[in-house]
Amino acid sequence: MKRFIDLAEHSPEEVAALLELAARLERHPEPTALRGKVMGMLFFNPSLRTVASFQAAMTRLGGGSFVITPGQGTWKLETRDGIVMDGEAAEHIREAVPVLASYADVLGIRAFAGGIDLQADIEERKFMEMAGYCPAPLVNMESAVNHPCQALADWKTMDDIGVPKAGGRFVLSWANHPNPLPLAVPSAAVHMAAMRGMDVTVLRPEGYELPEAIMGRARAAAAASGGSLRETDDRAEAMEGAHVVYAKSWQSTRYYGRPADDRAQRAALEHWMVDESWFAKARQDAVFMHCLPVRRNVVVADEILDGPRSRVLPQARNRMTVQMAILHRLLAGGTE
Amino acid sequence: MKRFIDLAEHSPEEVAALLELAARLERHPEPTALRGKVMGMLFFNPSLRTVASFQAAMTRLGGGSFVITPGQGTWKLETRDGIVMDGEAAEHIREAVPVLASYADVLGIRAFAGGIDLQADIEERKFMEMAGYCPAPLVNMESAVNHPCQALADWKTMDDIGVPKAGGRFVLSWANHPNPLPLAVPSAAVHMAAMRGMDVTVLRPEGYELPEAIMGRARAAAAASGGSLRETDDRAEAMEGAHVVYAKSWQSTRYYGRPADDRAQRAALEHWMVDESWFAKARQDAVFMHCLPVRRNVVVADEILDGPRSRVLPQARNRMTVQMAILHRLLAGGTE
Amino acid sequence: MKRFIDLAEHSPEEVAALLELAARLERHPEPTALRGKVMGMLFFNPSLRTVASFQAAMTRLGGGSFVITPGQGTWKLETRDGIVMDGEAAEHIREAVPVLASYADVLGIRAFAGGIDLQADIEERKFMEMAGYCPAPLVNMESAVNHPCQALADWKTMDDIGVPKAGGRFVLSWANHPNPLPLAVPSAAVHMAAMRGMDVTVLRPEGYELPEAIMGRARAAAAASGGSLRETDDRAEAMEGAHVVYAKSWQSTRYYGRPADDRAQRAALEHWMVDESWFAKARQDAVFMHCLPVRRNVVVADEILDGPRSRVLPQARNRMTVQMAILHRLLAGGTE
Repeated sequence: MKRFIDLAEHSPEEVAALLELAARLERHPEPTALRGKVMGMLFFNPSLRTVASFQAAMTRLGGGSFVITPGQGTWKLETRDGIVMDGEAAEHIREAVPVLASYADVLGIRAFAGGIDLQADIEERKFMEMAGYCPAPLVNMESAVNHPCQALADWKTMDDIGVPKAGGRFVLSWANHPNPLPLAVPSAAVHMAAMRGMDVTVLRPEGYELPEAIMGRARAAAAASGGSLRETDDRAEAMEGAHVVYAKSWQSTRYYGRPADDRAQRAALEHWMVDESWFAKARQDAVFMHCLPVRRNVVVADEILDGPRSRVLPQARNRMTVQMAILHRLLAGGTE
Repeated sequence: MKRFIDLAEHSPEEVAALLELAARLERHPEPTALRGKVMGMLFFNPSLRTVASFQAAMTRLGGGSFVITPGQGTWKLETRDGIVMDGEAAEHIREAVPVLASYADVLGIRAFAGGIDLQADIEERKFMEMAGYCPAPLVNMESAVNHPCQALADWKTMDDIGVPKAGGRFVLSWANHPNPLPLAVPSAAVHMAAMRGMDVTVLRPEGYELPEAIMGRARAAAAASGGSLRETDDRAEAMEGAHVVYAKSWQSTRYYGRPADDRAQRAALEHWMVDESWFAKARQDAVFMHCLPVRRNVVVADEILDGPRSRVLPQARNRMTVQMAILHRLLAGGTE
Repeated sequence: MKRFIDLAEHSPEEVAALLELAARLERHPEPTALRGKVMGMLFFNPSLRTVASFQAAMTRLGGGSFVITPGQGTWKLETRDGIVMDGEAAEHIREAVPVLASYADVLGIRAFAGGIDLQADIEERKFMEMAGYCPAPLVNMESAVNHPCQALADWKTMDDIGVPKAGGRFVLSWANHPNPLPLAVPSAAVHMAAMRGMDVTVLRPEGYELPEAIMGRARAAAAASGGSLRETDDRAEAMEGAHVVYAKSWQSTRYYGRPADDRAQRAALEHWMVDESWFAKARQDAVFMHCLPVRRNVVVADEILDGPRSRVLPQARNRMTVQMAILHRLLAGGTE
């Protein structure tokens, strides 16, 4: 394995092997496996779970890490090509990325969507440009429309509690939020569930359709795995027999890059906050998932987060667990 | 030992064992004792000694650490219960604390006093709420009215230079400062010295009495240890025969949460700056202690900090030393 | 070796031994050499390479590090002596430096030039004052007029590609920039090349002469090594037969501490941007060097950075490599 930037680059067998390795490392820690190894992390956007769990993962495997946040103790970075750099940014990513990669055995990059040009975001232009400057193994710590570490953690979380693959019903639901957010987590989650062989429903109000490029990829993954994928705005229909409700807010694809229009549209969508009433037609033991951070009583009610359905803490914990497996595979050279 | 959040939770025997372990680790480093172990640190307030000494301590024992400062590269955290999170904070401590704890073998939290509601601060409501969300071993890196790592370092500093326990005279003196500061260090110091069996005097101007809840606890500790505790505003009387002068500024308890009134009151208290004249009636070899950071020529004169009485650097160094013992006890499972 | 703060403090034999050690560590990693050892880093100015490469270096040798940036998660630091600290700074370097040093086996300090008083900067008053407060081994991570880690990395970079010592032609050229920058890198580079025995030319427009204190030291180093040193504003003459063009902008020494006058003077100097035309009279295989960060199309054209002459990435990579040798020598007690 040379990089981990998109779950779709990996076969189901590779994913299974990563999850086995994660489980093995949970049972049998290897505190010297990555002795003397270094992960570099480059964050263009805020983080809590990612920055903490990767540092913890490297320490648990005997290595170490460094964290760079441009503009915070370090230079602002320019990303545009061919520009005369007489403004605020003192350094270009054409230098910064390969330099940081040269200090590290693996580089992680977080670069959220620009949120203006949907096509550019879908094509991952920003992330893939930086990937092109990085000779070292690379980990996607969340890009414009992907978050493969989260997806793998979510997969493991369902495995851990026995949510079925074939016949498992996975509902990805849009939820309300004060701000227009990226498509990374919903895109990654829908692909993951489809690849896992589940029956996947995207539940969202009109105007929040996931782009066809993303749905098409997930549909292909479902076809290969024996799962299915559909989209609806009918909550009752979507929730029927659900095993998992995965909530997430994302910005309007109808008004992409037009936050004022998006906000106006969602003013009528405050009832898209998950509470116990949503689960009326779901399986009795249906669980609630969210990648965190989550805004309480906007995205989801306290009663869900503090009640027995919530799996948000195991999901977060599994970030570290699966990332240990990813780092081990990338750096320890093991073949499971 | 499951947590280290208040010196008062530990018996004199436990404290003695921690100090012995600290001394042993000074003589005989154990660079693999905590191999693969992780300390998470959550800072709601600034730090220099704490953030540096805990990281150094984990490295010296073979482990590692991560540091989270909400709002600085990471999300702002909400602390209020039941709130509709449609404002600035993207995440609630109900998620953030258990998530960070799940990546770590021990979590340290720093959360200064709110400084508005004295009763809430004395009850440590904020810190204890977070403690309730933390399933991992917990270390108090300074809370509203406590700073047990500082207290243990101070204890060791006096041991190191042979300040007597029984009969040792410890003066905690209020000092001037431009800002109203928390009660954490004075509360912890007075309790520590009382628990150590010393004769403790709290020297402070009127309006700066330590709360009875804190004095009462310290009085009980003194009763158990054979020490004593009194309070006065008479400098000459307080300093008579003193072995140690421990200076610290804290906010007015008369005008708690009313900084303008506090400042007006202290306008007449500029002479509460420790200089050599304070030591006229103290023992000739009396030492000066302060937890740092200290404002030179406001809290204490250069002549003291740069002269032979000062023990502020050994105090700071001992932060790391005792914290290594605390971490070792919490994580290495040793029974010394 | 007790400290690494100025290449001029080390004999050519010591430098050669450091470079050999760096090469050995490249071939034969020693992931336990500094087990349990700690580097403290104190940054008064931004950093990318330095903060990342030192952390990576400590990890690769089995140790760890902590990073302190005053005012960012930590207290602002006062540097003036004898001052009444009733302003913003909560702590003085007289406490902060020895405290941080007491947690570390080696302390690194970055403190750029004040940029107001040339004589004070040349004398390194600020850095040397802090050095005086630091009982631990000390590394200069860039001071007012020095950057010895960069200089050593540059030396290795030329060794790696076979640039000759005797007879090697090294051109340090001033370059345009929107801001008046410190003299640290040009001062360190000119001294390094002179000490390496090269024929050194400082190419700069009028008003940007390097101070005689710096030129004089470099001239002495050249005399000792068999090299030479001259200064000119004639590009064609300077570039004749050059092996290396090392570009760097620095502030006007004629208008030191007068940024408006400096900017007015450099308004006519936009053609001091290195592009391929500069190399007409240089050796065909002449290389381009720069310490980074570099402003593209202001200091140097894209065609150079993206073309075959550029050695800026190996230079940056060598920062880590030579720093591993410096840390190893300071902390592992080896004698090569």
